[in-house]
Amino acid sequence: MAHTLILLRHGQSEWNELNLFTGWVDVRLTELGRGEAKRGGELLKEQGVLPDVLHTSVLSRAIQTANIALDAADRLWIPVKRSWRLNERHYGALQGKDKAQTLAEFGEEKFMEWRRSFDVPPPVIDPADEYAQTDDPRYAGIDGDVPGTESLKLVIDRMLPYWEDEIVPDLQAGKTVLVAAHGNSLRGLVKHLDGISDDDIAALNIPTGIPLVYELGDDLKPLGPGRYLDPEAAAAGAAAVASQGKK
Amino acid sequence: MAHTLILLRHGQSEWNELNLFTGWVDVRLTELGRGEAKRGGELLKEQGVLPDVLHTSVLSRAIQTANIALDAADRLWIPVKRSWRLNERHYGALQGKDKAQTLAEFGEEKFMEWRRSFDVPPPVIDPADEYAQTDDPRYAGIDGDVPGTESLKLVIDRMLPYWEDEIVPDLQAGKTVLVAAHGNSLRGLVKHLDGISDDDIAALNIPTGIPLVYELGDDLKPLGPGRYLDPEAAAAGAAAVASQGKK
Repeated sequence: MAHTLILLRHGQSEWNELNLFTGWVDVRLTELGRGEAKRGGELLKEQGVLPDVLHTSVLSRAIQTANIALDAADRLWIPVKRSWRLNERHYGALQGKDKAQTLAEFGEEKFMEWRRSFDVPPPVIDPADEYAQTDDPRYAGIDGDVPGTESLKLVIDRMLPYWEDEIVPDLQAGKTVLVAAHGNSLRGLVKHLDGISDDDIAALNIPTGIPLVYELGDDLKPLGPGRYLDPEAAAAGAAAVASQGKK
Repeated sequence: MAHTLILLRHGQSEWNELNLFTGWVDVRLTELGRGEAKRGGELLKEQGVLPDVLHTSVLSRAIQTANIALDAADRLWIPVKRSWRLNERHYGALQGKDKAQTLAEFGEEKFMEWRRSFDVPPPVIDPADEYAQTDDPRYAGIDGDVPGTESLKLVIDRMLPYWEDEIVPDLQAGKTVLVAAHGNSLRGLVKHLDGISDDDIAALNIPTGIPLVYELGDDLKPLGPGRYLDPEAAAAGAAAVASQGKK
């Protein structure tokens, strides 16, 4: 039996537009981002790739994306589970900072190392910083696990237990699973699925709003490469992500 | 410990506007209905009545209402459970029919009996009717339980097991619970909570889009009457619901 997994990265958020490091700061989608989500849902419906269950992060922009896409796909009624383990990478002290300013201040090398290295996290955020998630009720009960900064490696370390414990059982039960999440939590999952090396993952960019579909075997390994439901838009979108922060 | 329960009836749907019997037909909110949902969420936020967990039906108009309200209340991230047991009453063969036409065809007495009697369901819908839910994937797995028509009594019979099994445990765990549902599933729940008689429930109308908050004791009985977060709008809304179908 083949198992179908759909990955969906949220569309443009208010801070993508402003070119700020977002991470765990809970900003909303822009109108453009809402349109991307709707188009993503229409692609699911048009191509008959219909999710039976949804998994999201606890960040509003991923949840909004899922809600809009499922409305467009006529699947609002499917069960949903949410976890902080699917959140975007925590950007530490960079959260709330302008990307171009960070680039100018720390230089291209440090900037690219923080953005794209596998295991070098930015400086830890001050708990008193206005962009820290101190006392955010959605993280009550997981206090010991809330990060102050993360590398991609740390994202994968906290995401994989959720994959194994919550998503894999749904796939094994024969359900088509939609994961609505973020650039880095999804890069981590694709790295795991496709066996991408720590070095090569830096070059992988996942475009926003375009469903990426994997068919998995009984061992939960991909039977082939993931396919975007709109390949042309995906190629253009990945190029746009790669150039982020360079303006 | 007091337990807080919030009931929210979905706002205007496409078929409310057309004055058609809707029941289990999966129509969407109108722009007016979306505005009502947003206002409902703003009331929750303004008055600090913040849900920890959401329960919805599997009908899109209730789910849309919850999604919009939680976005406005900044609580999109709370856990959610859905069940057909919170659905609107199944209107049987009346589904898809014009209310004024039904009134003219069957007369005021039959019309009011079907709409407001406690235990007289309308005729069963033909499974081949375009407004039957035959083969709707959201009801796969509960085939034996899908009704062909319902009285309010039958709604309560299928709603109460969900109340006992899924909602009560959340309340007992100290969570503030939001139930986003429909005129008749919520009337059934209010009848249960307030101990309203089979005769008196006919006169109870729940307005759309205005959160109705109950504080419950440890025995899950109300400590006082439910209160609407906007009492003036609620009174006007209940009067509008009572006059439905009379135009």
